[in-house]
Amino acid sequence: MAELVREELHSSVTDPVAASMNFLNEIAGRFPAAISLAAGRPFDEFYAVEDVERYLAAYLGHLRAQGIPEARVRQAILQYGRTNGQLGTMIARMLEVDEDIRVPAESVMVTSGCQEAMIIALRGLCAHPRDVVLAAEPCYVGFTGAARVLGITVVPVPETAQGLRPETVARVAREVRASGRRPRALYVVSNFANPSGVSLSADVRRGLIETAADEDLLILEDDPYGLFGLDDRRSPVLKSLDTGQRVIYLGSFAKSVFPGARVGFLVADQTVVSAAGHRSLLADELSTVKSMITVNTSPIAQAVIGGVLVSCGYSLRSANQEKIAFYRSNLRALLAALERHFSDPAITWNSPSGGFFAVLDAPVRADEKLLERSARDYGVLWTPMSFFYLDGGGSHAIRLSCSALTADQIDEGVRRLAALIADVRS
Amino acid sequence: MAELVREELHSSVTDPVAASMNFLNEIAGRFPAAISLAAGRPFDEFYAVEDVERYLAAYLGHLRAQGIPEARVRQAILQYGRTNGQLGTMIARMLEVDEDIRVPAESVMVTSGCQEAMIIALRGLCAHPRDVVLAAEPCYVGFTGAARVLGITVVPVPETAQGLRPETVARVAREVRASGRRPRALYVVSNFANPSGVSLSADVRRGLIETAADEDLLILEDDPYGLFGLDDRRSPVLKSLDTGQRVIYLGSFAKSVFPGARVGFLVADQTVVSAAGHRSLLADELSTVKSMITVNTSPIAQAVIGGVLVSCGYSLRSANQEKIAFYRSNLRALLAALERHFSDPAITWNSPSGGFFAVLDAPVRADEKLLERSARDYGVLWTPMSFFYLDGGGSHAIRLSCSALTADQIDEGVRRLAALIADVRS
Repeated sequence: MAELVREELHSSVTDPVAASMNFLNEIAGRFPAAISLAAGRPFDEFYAVEDVERYLAAYLGHLRAQGIPEARVRQAILQYGRTNGQLGTMIARMLEVDEDIRVPAESVMVTSGCQEAMIIALRGLCAHPRDVVLAAEPCYVGFTGAARVLGITVVPVPETAQGLRPETVARVAREVRASGRRPRALYVVSNFANPSGVSLSADVRRGLIETAADEDLLILEDDPYGLFGLDDRRSPVLKSLDTGQRVIYLGSFAKSVFPGARVGFLVADQTVVSAAGHRSLLADELSTVKSMITVNTSPIAQAVIGGVLVSCGYSLRSANQEKIAFYRSNLRALLAALERHFSDPAITWNSPSGGFFAVLDAPVRADEKLLERSARDYGVLWTPMSFFYLDGGGSHAIRLSCSALTADQIDEGVRRLAALIADVRS
Repeated sequence: MAELVREELHSSVTDPVAASMNFLNEIAGRFPAAISLAAGRPFDEFYAVEDVERYLAAYLGHLRAQGIPEARVRQAILQYGRTNGQLGTMIARMLEVDEDIRVPAESVMVTSGCQEAMIIALRGLCAHPRDVVLAAEPCYVGFTGAARVLGITVVPVPETAQGLRPETVARVAREVRASGRRPRALYVVSNFANPSGVSLSADVRRGLIETAADEDLLILEDDPYGLFGLDDRRSPVLKSLDTGQRVIYLGSFAKSVFPGARVGFLVADQTVVSAAGHRSLLADELSTVKSMITVNTSPIAQAVIGGVLVSCGYSLRSANQEKIAFYRSNLRALLAALERHFSDPAITWNSPSGGFFAVLDAPVRADEKLLERSARDYGVLWTPMSFFYLDGGGSHAIRLSCSALTADQIDEGVRRLAALIADVRS
């Protein structure tokens, strides 16, 4: 009987971050009644299963209204399709309406969720072991995970309360170069980051674009939470400021529509020049990588998302007013609950201006042992911030999510957390 | 303005096989009236777009019939889901009914098409640069492409008219070991391979299982065409003979249902043992890799395939009788057309016992130049077999596909090809 040795499998299988996430899921499974301030998934009562059919029908209607023959409509849903997908025009239009991003439809690649967009961009850009990527730290585990699958080194750039400092990015890029490696890109979440909740200030946004040009970096901008600000003031996404084509934009419909489609996209409008002088679009070059990972994104899933875009006049911002109100109310409930239940001046938290997350700093070791005790004895789950650091860090910090709960649950969850921390400190 | 240098992108972007495939697509685009004996896609008139809705409804009905509460049904379609997917039980049942494979549902991972199954299996198994995989050559380009994305070396094992010879596999495995590398797995298409059309004899199947044990290899068995034999005689798939758990089975619904779902799967029932003695299932270990590539497979797409499986009583073989008859008739038409239009004894072809492909050997250089001439002057497309060899080979051979044409088109296509070759030889 063949038995495989776990330690001989690839390091991405035995990734400690994945093990941590598994531990979190296991705890959640063992204590199903606990309130989860850990789950960052979107609230799922905005849609019904019947909507899938409705949006599918809207997309088919859109194709037929253009006079596309029935055989081609059938192929668009049932056959293999174009590697980069069939929603390029629709997504480009949405990006213009919602984000003031103007890019050609051909620069859009539809992906099997934003996760695949990350791995495709990373694969295309990093050719040699000396090609590394920088990432704001604390960093979304999906990004570091994608890099790990490909064996690409991620060099952390510490984030401040105002987000990344462009001068720190420049310093790290130079250090990387001085060590004989090549920094190819910087990964950053521009609005209400997961896990920190931090957003980039307008000055930082402009500064990062300049730094990318000065240091010959691309920026991988991820913006899954951008719609969900606490108010209607908006900072421009990096891609909308990107006159020098330094930004590859990574897009998700998981929060703005629903996760079950598993449709995301990337925008790569950079010009690629070959040694022979041939010019092409980076999105077209990356299509080879996409074809070797998933061939193309499920046309059925694409059709559902296409139907949503048609139905909302290409403005997810206007289509999401109900969700925006819900998440605003939840984040306000979280911040109010923190005020209500924590009075110890040694315990602090940040005040994100939107999104699903906030971070609590407390003089307790926020490790897996404490998490297990929290779930068992206090009925509340949260995420140790240490999960989001590459080389240590976050040992006394907690990520709190508020996306999948009611306001009452949030308040009760924070009350329980305060009781836990008070007991540990007493 | 940022410009990227093409030669500094990853080698998978500039993969010569991808360039060849692009060339083929470009030729097809330039000569749309040409008959394509190149396209290996499934014929797409067996399904209508309305079937998507119907199967989705069948899956929802199945969930509700089990008493699953509506909120959970909604989550099953619209939320993130289990990394390894929700069709494990259904697929395990189908494998038992159709293929006499008995595996636990937990050993099944649902993937975003079979392509993702390949890349996940490769990633999990190959940890170090010295870990390589063997593959029957000529080899499906999707497999070599997946390996290229990960930088994994593929060592070819030459195929004969009877498929792989186990003793050749053993010899190559030993040579690889002698060179300081570790052969982790062998990739093979058991039935009616793409591109060669070749199937493994019953003896070879048993021999490969033995060789895998002797040489400490796993076998990655890919079987997308297994349903489509010329008659009802069936050879057991390797996985059904796999008492020693040497086989990871890679599954596709692209031909047995339709490609637009982009749902595939892998079966990895191997035991993994950690240094600490903890035992787990390989499918569970690989879920970490899956989570870093696409998080999970679109639940909407899974639901459509689930609805198909429920509707056919878990037998794709019985559900596919119409398709089976169609592809049989097409392959017979191809073999008859070859008999009819080629009388030169210097020109030979094989006679596959099923599937979508046959190979013609002719004393002409079957390169891109000839292909362009063929499309322009003779109105027929085909695939140079050289695309399927890693280090040269197939220079005078042509892959002929018969899956997406009518019998009349097949005959006319082969007539045109014969005229081309006659002119080149005269």
